[in-house]
Amino acid sequence: MKIDPMDLSLSRAYAENLDSQDPLAPIRSRFVIADPDLIYLDGNSLGRLPLASSTDVQQLVEQEWGLALVRGWNEGWWEAPVRAGEKIARLVGAAPGQLVVCDNVSINLFKLAAAALALRPDRTCIITDTLNFPSDLYILQGLVRLLEKSHSILRIGSREGNVTPDLEALAEAIDENTALVTLSHVTFKSGYLYDMASVTELAHRQGALVLWDLSHSAGALPVGLDACNADFAIGCTYKYLNGGPGSPAFLYVRKDLQERVLSPITGWWGQNSPFAFDLDYTPAPGVARFLSGTPPILSLIAMESALEPLLEAGMEAIRVKSVLLGEYLIFLAEARLIPLGFCLGSPRSAQQRGSHISLRHPEGYRINRVLIEEMKVIPDFRAPDNLRLGLAPLYTSFCDVWEAVERIHRAVEEKRYEKYPVGRLVVT
Amino acid sequence: MKIDPMDLSLSRAYAENLDSQDPLAPIRSRFVIADPDLIYLDGNSLGRLPLASSTDVQQLVEQEWGLALVRGWNEGWWEAPVRAGEKIARLVGAAPGQLVVCDNVSINLFKLAAAALALRPDRTCIITDTLNFPSDLYILQGLVRLLEKSHSILRIGSREGNVTPDLEALAEAIDENTALVTLSHVTFKSGYLYDMASVTELAHRQGALVLWDLSHSAGALPVGLDACNADFAIGCTYKYLNGGPGSPAFLYVRKDLQERVLSPITGWWGQNSPFAFDLDYTPAPGVARFLSGTPPILSLIAMESALEPLLEAGMEAIRVKSVLLGEYLIFLAEARLIPLGFCLGSPRSAQQRGSHISLRHPEGYRINRVLIEEMKVIPDFRAPDNLRLGLAPLYTSFCDVWEAVERIHRAVEEKRYEKYPVGRLVVT
Repeated sequence: MKIDPMDLSLSRAYAENLDSQDPLAPIRSRFVIADPDLIYLDGNSLGRLPLASSTDVQQLVEQEWGLALVRGWNEGWWEAPVRAGEKIARLVGAAPGQLVVCDNVSINLFKLAAAALALRPDRTCIITDTLNFPSDLYILQGLVRLLEKSHSILRIGSREGNVTPDLEALAEAIDENTALVTLSHVTFKSGYLYDMASVTELAHRQGALVLWDLSHSAGALPVGLDACNADFAIGCTYKYLNGGPGSPAFLYVRKDLQERVLSPITGWWGQNSPFAFDLDYTPAPGVARFLSGTPPILSLIAMESALEPLLEAGMEAIRVKSVLLGEYLIFLAEARLIPLGFCLGSPRSAQQRGSHISLRHPEGYRINRVLIEEMKVIPDFRAPDNLRLGLAPLYTSFCDVWEAVERIHRAVEEKRYEKYPVGRLVVT
Repeated sequence: MKIDPMDLSLSRAYAENLDSQDPLAPIRSRFVIADPDLIYLDGNSLGRLPLASSTDVQQLVEQEWGLALVRGWNEGWWEAPVRAGEKIARLVGAAPGQLVVCDNVSINLFKLAAAALALRPDRTCIITDTLNFPSDLYILQGLVRLLEKSHSILRIGSREGNVTPDLEALAEAIDENTALVTLSHVTFKSGYLYDMASVTELAHRQGALVLWDLSHSAGALPVGLDACNADFAIGCTYKYLNGGPGSPAFLYVRKDLQERVLSPITGWWGQNSPFAFDLDYTPAPGVARFLSGTPPILSLIAMESALEPLLEAGMEAIRVKSVLLGEYLIFLAEARLIPLGFCLGSPRSAQQRGSHISLRHPEGYRINRVLIEEMKVIPDFRAPDNLRLGLAPLYTSFCDVWEAVERIHRAVEEKRYEKYPVGRLVVT
């Protein structure tokens, strides 16, 4: 299946035809879609509810917590962080034994960044960029403050109005004093997709370690952690992995580094033999030493169940559809929305993009609001002017994209947004 | 309601009479108790499933995640860490604005211990004891290693075969070099209950800060955090708070300390204005600065719902029943179990006890196993020889206690445990 540019048409029938040829279309039925007229384009913030998660949580609560009670720990809960981790590993190109589910992205970054700095005690610079998710920057700032050493954090700037990073500046900055390079694989506003292999190699040539935040790429596109020789990775599971609100995050430590690093947060789940109740900490073998305390089992099991449709579809097929959805959206936007004052806030090349498209408009905040409140379209908004449209290949249809563009067109052309006050919404 | 020692009887009818006079008996119906013949005495590890949690999780998954989708963040999820925290505050004697729900106990200890050490930069000693939950000790060890300063950790020893702490040694140890004293308010094996007011005062006299782990006291007995002038506290919510497997933990920072401390894990949930997406961290006002990243909403909402029966019953009534259950259990154990080789592994005085009773027996491991596998009694086991019997006043009845003692008696007298191999079970 591919889009022939000569064939492209603005008609809804064309979208229907694309859906009819979509090999992933049947997967949509694995999600709860109660109102087909609601166009949900915020799967990059919170993925839709998988049927399996709904069923499995009810079973977990009623049968396991309710009846098995504490025995549930012996019937599958205890292994969940590792078991779910191995499933995510298959989606991000990691061989077994390198990835576990625990805590949240901020905490996992804290743990792995601390471990990385300890591996490069003679280097003082951490390199990141201004496109990174701010919480990642905050975590680095907090860690540097806590350590009270002479670490500095260098934030590489951006280009094209904060759409792409300044790759030349990045290449120049990495040197023999660089301990760690840490970046969002796909950036949260523009959706820019870093070339993981080349940046990792660049850093390794200078002896620096690399930590990737996969929050916007896990489940959206193939990630070759092992193939790229990445050192560390973290990521969230409630976006394209559909794990549910605040579902626990994951972390990856490359096999050959594991025995040389320690977590700074040495809780009993990362202890070698937690039920011996020794008074001194001994790290568990392998990546499990980065587990901290008891994980939130309801949220964890809902997330694990959500992985099934992704594993079944396969990341290659998901990426093919993601690119087609993106190209189709940009084609429609160029015809229908750019003339109304929008501009593209994402890279034009699919090779440089994750699975959301940012459209910028001076009235972006109010347009987002009218879409949600009146027009049954749910995108999200990121200051100052980004309307993000998330394309989740497992359930976003080509008709969804066509409908969304038409409704956005109407909202702006009819100036429906003007009755809303200027301000900011609280959405994640 | 009180037990008259002159009336005490070993008959089941006596237990039934106690139940008939129990003002908290009706609260039992707020929990899922599918099999009344199963005697559940492990609420000190995983509390029973409250009906409200079951209903509310289903509503959350189907209606909120399934239908409201990302809009759920604007309809109650975002405020959940603070809202649930304020409910727990009422159970542990804390005025509003000092307690939030987040992460797990290990992570919360890491954050608060780091904050405490920063408040006492010229002092290098952390004091704890050998009765503390080992994960708490591991966390302190990891923090000290990370900071690479000259901190030391002093573990005060115990008495009476690890039942009570050595209070004289504790008093002697706290001096002008003590930065932090951190203890489990109720210890996990023997159930010893520290006098929070006197230990806190002792530490404050020497200028040291105090951090209490309330994992085994929150929901089991009244805790006067404000009244005792405690500096910091942490605690788990899946024991006597009935929050469900791995439900998120809480942390408390006394009001007047809040603006002087920072979290070492500075994620966006602890940022002053997270949706401004500033590149630099500015702490949120108050205790909210100790939030890290996005919390696990399914586990968090299940936990919040679980607090309702506790708030309704009130901690004073819960403590009265807890003490009666404990005294009754010890009375029965003295008559029926001590003659079979058991000894009491908890303090004899109710004033020095939390809400579980530890009975020690050389065959404790195998007795625990036969009780679970054949006799429909669920206690838990802690090495080397502790059979812990958790008394959760909201749903443990006096008949439960009577039945448990009779079945333990039978298991041991008939030597039913002998067919099981020696070993260790994985339970939390």
